[in-house]
Amino acid sequence: MSVTRKPDARKKNRSGRIKIQDVARLAQVSLSTVSGVLNEKDNIRPETRQRVLDVIAQLGYTPNMFASNLARRRTKLIGIIVSDLLNPFFAEIARALDIEARKHGYETFLASTNFNMEQQGEAVRQMLSLRVAGIAMMTSENDPEAFFQLKASGTPAVYLDNNHSAPTIGTVRVDKRHGMYVAVKHLLELGHRRILLIKNSQRDSNAPPMFSHMERQIGFEEALHQYNAADMDVHIIDEPGEPAAAGLSAVERALKHYRFTAVVAINDLVALGAFRALQAAGRTIPNDVSVVGFDDTYLCRFLHPPLTTVATPRNELAHSVLDMLFRYVDGEEHVNEPTLSANIVLRESTAPPAKE
Amino acid sequence: MSVTRKPDARKKNRSGRIKIQDVARLAQVSLSTVSGVLNEKDNIRPETRQRVLDVIAQLGYTPNMFASNLARRRTKLIGIIVSDLLNPFFAEIARALDIEARKHGYETFLASTNFNMEQQGEAVRQMLSLRVAGIAMMTSENDPEAFFQLKASGTPAVYLDNNHSAPTIGTVRVDKRHGMYVAVKHLLELGHRRILLIKNSQRDSNAPPMFSHMERQIGFEEALHQYNAADMDVHIIDEPGEPAAAGLSAVERALKHYRFTAVVAINDLVALGAFRALQAAGRTIPNDVSVVGFDDTYLCRFLHPPLTTVATPRNELAHSVLDMLFRYVDGEEHVNEPTLSANIVLRESTAPPAKE
Repeated sequence: MSVTRKPDARKKNRSGRIKIQDVARLAQVSLSTVSGVLNEKDNIRPETRQRVLDVIAQLGYTPNMFASNLARRRTKLIGIIVSDLLNPFFAEIARALDIEARKHGYETFLASTNFNMEQQGEAVRQMLSLRVAGIAMMTSENDPEAFFQLKASGTPAVYLDNNHSAPTIGTVRVDKRHGMYVAVKHLLELGHRRILLIKNSQRDSNAPPMFSHMERQIGFEEALHQYNAADMDVHIIDEPGEPAAAGLSAVERALKHYRFTAVVAINDLVALGAFRALQAAGRTIPNDVSVVGFDDTYLCRFLHPPLTTVATPRNELAHSVLDMLFRYVDGEEHVNEPTLSANIVLRESTAPPAKE
Repeated sequence: MSVTRKPDARKKNRSGRIKIQDVARLAQVSLSTVSGVLNEKDNIRPETRQRVLDVIAQLGYTPNMFASNLARRRTKLIGIIVSDLLNPFFAEIARALDIEARKHGYETFLASTNFNMEQQGEAVRQMLSLRVAGIAMMTSENDPEAFFQLKASGTPAVYLDNNHSAPTIGTVRVDKRHGMYVAVKHLLELGHRRILLIKNSQRDSNAPPMFSHMERQIGFEEALHQYNAADMDVHIIDEPGEPAAAGLSAVERALKHYRFTAVVAINDLVALGAFRALQAAGRTIPNDVSVVGFDDTYLCRFLHPPLTTVATPRNELAHSVLDMLFRYVDGEEHVNEPTLSANIVLRESTAPPAKE
């Protein structure tokens, strides 16, 4: 119970701005009662509510949104964390989430980790301190500490392909393994036996490999294993650095050392770099070399020839992520974690291999 | 002056969490004194400071970052607002600003407007309510209302190519007009006379044309005017929609109606779409048609052939924007507004026109 003396409430504080404290003093109620009135809580007696509203009108007080967020504990804000702004896969997810969140009356803010776990932790702490309603953790890397901080805070969060969960933290999975399996099967059925897989699983040499890239490699190997052709000749290059540059230098190197009729790129940007290296070396796509990408970003349609790739359903993903987040926000726990399918999109960058 | 009665401070409040109010009561000081101690203000007497610190230690109080931001009025956060996450121009600016801000101990959050003035206003209001230290308004469209809100809030902001300023709101200009002038002059000197300019100045039919696109058109026309060749044949298509798709459909249409030996694309993504349309129609770049882009995003190096474009100095831009913002944050007003130059980067997509 706070003890107050009736002040001259019309006397403004030094900054000249009327504060919630002034309202509380003149109405002879606690700060939390004023805040309860402002936030339309229903545990306040009607005569008290009226007294507070009268004082608010008398002083011309306009609530400070920031303080009002403090009272409510949550903003109408979803934090989105992605790994790489320059990969259109992440930009497209962020855009889809933003469009979907606005339908629910929420805005979104975006932070990027550059695949750095420390930055992921900082983004989480910053978003928690801003009292976001929930966090969409759309990253390839996952910092265990950031997960524990989220869990401790009780703030709802939804991950992309994570293996940990908590009462208000869940995961939307995309079956990338199957997506890659189908893409490689497509190449095998076209007759390709000399296949180059280009990974880009580490941005720097200290980072652990990314789960979503490991999943894709498993799908790749499942297809090879199941097809079980006698004359397979497979090479895998894991090239660090920016993805398009990695695709370019991996193919430049491969052209010197291996013979291959098909390239499987771990994502569309790696495929972009592979295209450039093949075309600069005078190879025609798909006549000399077929190329398959992954993600079905907008780039695929504008490459020449348009890129055959594996589509992750971006809009369905955004919808599922926000559906989970809002159910947590509404008080549900342990909600069902969906798995979305990933399927091949055939365009013009794949064809049967040339006769040797 | 607040009047308090000594309470039993060890009695926690209902939520069980020790609050700053508990510290203030037990130390017999005002909330603002506690907050002053927490924020290391130097206007607090040493014995008062010590008493507050003793109580904090006694209660095991950990300050709520959100409340602490409230006390300080500013977070260590820069808000970045861009027009389009999917255009690497904006993604590269956002990334450069983030890297630069981290050097100063700040984090960044990003919001995208999708070229929508209403969304720009919402992003500004949201960022102001979160008490960001400053806003980097890296948008092509500028909502006058959002500008007035920024001005009224006193929150520092730096625009990209804006014509309005205020004591703590400034602009970094990039001389896009000159950049475009140089690019068109390059084509004219190569001998091109049949030139197609593809603009993408409106995302939807209700939006006003974008200032940065108008600047580029002026540079385009200045070069034509100065060169003053008798046999000029220039066509301008202003195609709405997503930029790569706009470039593609503009070229498809132009191929039916006009003869041209060079395409000037208003940005690199429009050039990407133009490449695809030209190559799908069997035209070779640059032998049949030269193409010039604008922005020098990472895509240019990976197109086939690599794209000649106009470079806006991304890192210098990020540096200038944050330098201005932090000078405003430190209390300076009306700081000098720099203009950065934009220059052509010659790659392989331009050559003399084929003999007719």
